[in-house]
Amino acid sequence: MDYQRVFTQAIDRLHAEGRYRVFIDILRNKGTFPNARCFAGHNGPKPITVWCSNDYLTMGQHPDVIAAMEEALHDVGAGSGGTRNIGGNTHYHVDLEAELADLHGKEGALLFTSGYVSNEAALSTLAKVLPGCVIFSDELNHASMIAGIRNSGCEKRVFRHNDLEHLEELLAAEAPETPKLIAFESVYSMDGDISPIHAICDLADRYNALTYLDEVHAVGMYGPRGGGISDRENAAHRLTIIEGTLGKAFGVMGGYIAADQVIIDVIRSYAPGFIFTTSLSPVLVAGALASVRHLKASCVERDGQQAAAAKLKEMMAEAGLPVMPSTTHIVPLMVGDPVRAKRISDILLAEYGVYVQPINYPTVPRGAERLRFTPGPAHNLEMMEDLVSALVEIWDRLELRLAA
Amino acid sequence: MDYQRVFTQAIDRLHAEGRYRVFIDILRNKGTFPNARCFAGHNGPKPITVWCSNDYLTMGQHPDVIAAMEEALHDVGAGSGGTRNIGGNTHYHVDLEAELADLHGKEGALLFTSGYVSNEAALSTLAKVLPGCVIFSDELNHASMIAGIRNSGCEKRVFRHNDLEHLEELLAAEAPETPKLIAFESVYSMDGDISPIHAICDLADRYNALTYLDEVHAVGMYGPRGGGISDRENAAHRLTIIEGTLGKAFGVMGGYIAADQVIIDVIRSYAPGFIFTTSLSPVLVAGALASVRHLKASCVERDGQQAAAAKLKEMMAEAGLPVMPSTTHIVPLMVGDPVRAKRISDILLAEYGVYVQPINYPTVPRGAERLRFTPGPAHNLEMMEDLVSALVEIWDRLELRLAA
Repeated sequence: MDYQRVFTQAIDRLHAEGRYRVFIDILRNKGTFPNARCFAGHNGPKPITVWCSNDYLTMGQHPDVIAAMEEALHDVGAGSGGTRNIGGNTHYHVDLEAELADLHGKEGALLFTSGYVSNEAALSTLAKVLPGCVIFSDELNHASMIAGIRNSGCEKRVFRHNDLEHLEELLAAEAPETPKLIAFESVYSMDGDISPIHAICDLADRYNALTYLDEVHAVGMYGPRGGGISDRENAAHRLTIIEGTLGKAFGVMGGYIAADQVIIDVIRSYAPGFIFTTSLSPVLVAGALASVRHLKASCVERDGQQAAAAKLKEMMAEAGLPVMPSTTHIVPLMVGDPVRAKRISDILLAEYGVYVQPINYPTVPRGAERLRFTPGPAHNLEMMEDLVSALVEIWDRLELRLAA
Repeated sequence: MDYQRVFTQAIDRLHAEGRYRVFIDILRNKGTFPNARCFAGHNGPKPITVWCSNDYLTMGQHPDVIAAMEEALHDVGAGSGGTRNIGGNTHYHVDLEAELADLHGKEGALLFTSGYVSNEAALSTLAKVLPGCVIFSDELNHASMIAGIRNSGCEKRVFRHNDLEHLEELLAAEAPETPKLIAFESVYSMDGDISPIHAICDLADRYNALTYLDEVHAVGMYGPRGGGISDRENAAHRLTIIEGTLGKAFGVMGGYIAADQVIIDVIRSYAPGFIFTTSLSPVLVAGALASVRHLKASCVERDGQQAAAAKLKEMMAEAGLPVMPSTTHIVPLMVGDPVRAKRISDILLAEYGVYVQPINYPTVPRGAERLRFTPGPAHNLEMMEDLVSALVEIWDRLELRLAA
C-alpha cells in the first residue's frame, strides 16, 4: 500500500478539475469593514475590499460587541476550560440561551461550537431517539444537515428543491405511524432564494411530521427582531426546531438550536457532538449576547443591507452582468466554470483590490460555479461602482458575454 | 406517533439511572483561577474553588494570552466572517498553523473549530480517501474518534486498551495490501494512563500502517516544548498524524492536526467538517498563538502542575481515599455509582464550595462513575488540605469505606 501515492492522486484530481482551493490570507480592519489587508501573493500585501464576508451586517466590529468581549476577557479569561457538563457552563452561556429562546419564541435553546455542529448533532440525535424515523430533506440542504442525516443512520427521502408536491408525495408514501422529520432551510445561501415555510408546516401538520428549519443565512437579518424568515412570516411557533448561527450576521462564532424544553433536554443529554466538546469561549458568548440584543432592537443594519443588495443587483443587471435572480441579500453572479471563476477572482484581487471568492464544487454543483457577493450596510456606492466597472472590464477582457 | 411521549421517556430514562446532568452555572475569576463564582442553586451565588477544569495550566488567564486576544479584538474584530476558503482565512490562522507544525516537528498543521471536530473530520476523511481502509482503534478512544471512525463507513477493529498483543493479532489478520490506520490517544483522560507510543509505532512499521495519535490531554503539558507525550518520548516523527486541542492546556478553544503537507492538503480539501464551517475567531487564534509560544519556552506551568498532582495523589492516598493509579496530571477518585458520585459532588459544592463534576456514563463505563480532579499550578496546599478533609468527612458521612 503506497499511501503517499493515494494522497497525491487525491490532490492531483483537484488540480485537474481546476478546483484546488487557495486560501486568501487576510486581516480585516476593525472599524472600517469591508476594508481589509491582503498578505503575500496577488500583488500584496495591500489594502483590499472584502465582497464575500458572511459577517453580513458588520456586527463583528460593532462597539457593543467589542466592548462585551473585552469585558468578558478581563472578567473570566480566554476559554471556558471544559465541556458544558464539566466546568464549562458559564453564566454567559445560560444568558445567551435564554436570549436565543426568546428571539425565536421557544421554551429553550442550546449552544454548539458552530452551526455545522448544531446541524450535525441535532439532526443525528433526533433521528436516533425516534425509532424508525424518516427524514425528508430538501435537495439543496447544507452539507452539515446532510452529515447529520447521514450520521443518524435513518431513512432519508430527498425532495426536489422547494417542491411542495414532491414533498407531499414522499410524505404520503410513508405509514401514518412512522416518525417523520422535514429538514429544510429558510434562505439557501448560494442561490439566495427562500423556502415556503408556512406551506411546508401545513404539510407537516397534515402528515404529523416534525420540522427542522436552518435559518443560518437569515437570523439577525430578517424579521422585526432579526429572528429570521420565520420571524418575518410569523411562522416560528409552527416549527419544531429552528437552527441558527452566531458566526454570520451576529458577527462572532458558534451555532444553536431553539425548541421546546424537552427537545433541548434530549439533544443536550444524548448528542455526542454537544456532550464531548469544550464549550464556546465565554468571550465569544458575551459578544454574541451583545450582538443578538442589539439586532433585536435595531433595524438600521438590516435596512442598510437590503438597500445595498438591491442597489448592487440593479447595477449589475444594468451592466448586463449575469446576476442570478436572488430574492435576498445574496448576490450571485453565474460563471459556470471553475477555471474561469477562479481567473476572474484572481484578476479582481490582483488588479482591483477586490476580494470575492470563486464558489466551486462541492459547495455548488459542477457547472454552476459562480462568484457570490454579499453587500452589507458598509458597502457604499463608490465601492459598488468600482466593483461593477471592474467586472465589466474583466468580462470584456475574457470575452465573456454581457446581456444586451 | 406521539413525539412528546418518546422525548419525555428518553429523559425519564436518565433520571431513573441517576445520570441526568445538571450543568453548574459558574464564572471563573480571571487572575485568581481556580477561584470562581457559582450562580443559583447549591447555596449560591457564592465563591467556589474549581477542581475539574481542563484549563490545566491556567493559561486562560495568562497575561500574554489576554493581551494577544485584546489586541486582535481591536485590530480585526470579533469573528472571522467566513469559512477558511471564503473570507475566513486570517493571517493569525496561517501563523498558528505554522507554529503548531513546528511544535510537533511536522510539515503542516490544520485548525478546526474544536478537538472533537478535528478527530471527526480527519479520521472520517482519511479513511474515505483510502479505499478499503481498516481502522484499528483502542477500546477507550474518545467519543470524537469513535464518531470519525463510524462516519468514515470503513471497517473497524477495536483492540483492548493499550494491549499490544491484541493489536498485533488484529493487524496480522488483515492482508498486507490493505490500507491500515491505528488510532489511539497518548493520555487517556478519565483514567490518566499513557499509551506505549513507540511500541505501537513499531507495530505500524511492521504492518505498514498509518498512525493517528490524539494528544489533547497532553499538548502543552508534556515534553520539553509542550508537544505532548510524543515530544517527551521523542516519537513525534514516527507518527503520521498528531491531533491536539487549543481548549485545554492552551486555555482557549479549537482543535488541530499536524502531519505531512500532502495529508494536511487532503483533509483541508475533502473534509466537510473543515470546509463548511466558519473558521475560528481570530481573537481565539491570536490567544492560542500566544499560549503555544509561551509554553514552548516555559516549563514553570508544567512543573507546577506535576508537583500539584503528585502532592494531591499522595494526600488522598494517605487519607485512605480510593484514588486511582494515574501516572499523569489527572487524579481520578473511584466511586462506582452514579447516584453516589452526584451526591458527593453536590455536598462538596453546597457545603464546602468545592466544584468537581461527577463523571458518569457515557463518559466512563457504567459502574466506573468517579470524581475527576485536575490540580494545576495554581491549586495551593491550603486548597488541597481543605479538599481532602472535606472528602474524608463526606466519605464518613455516607458510610463509604476508607482504606486502612
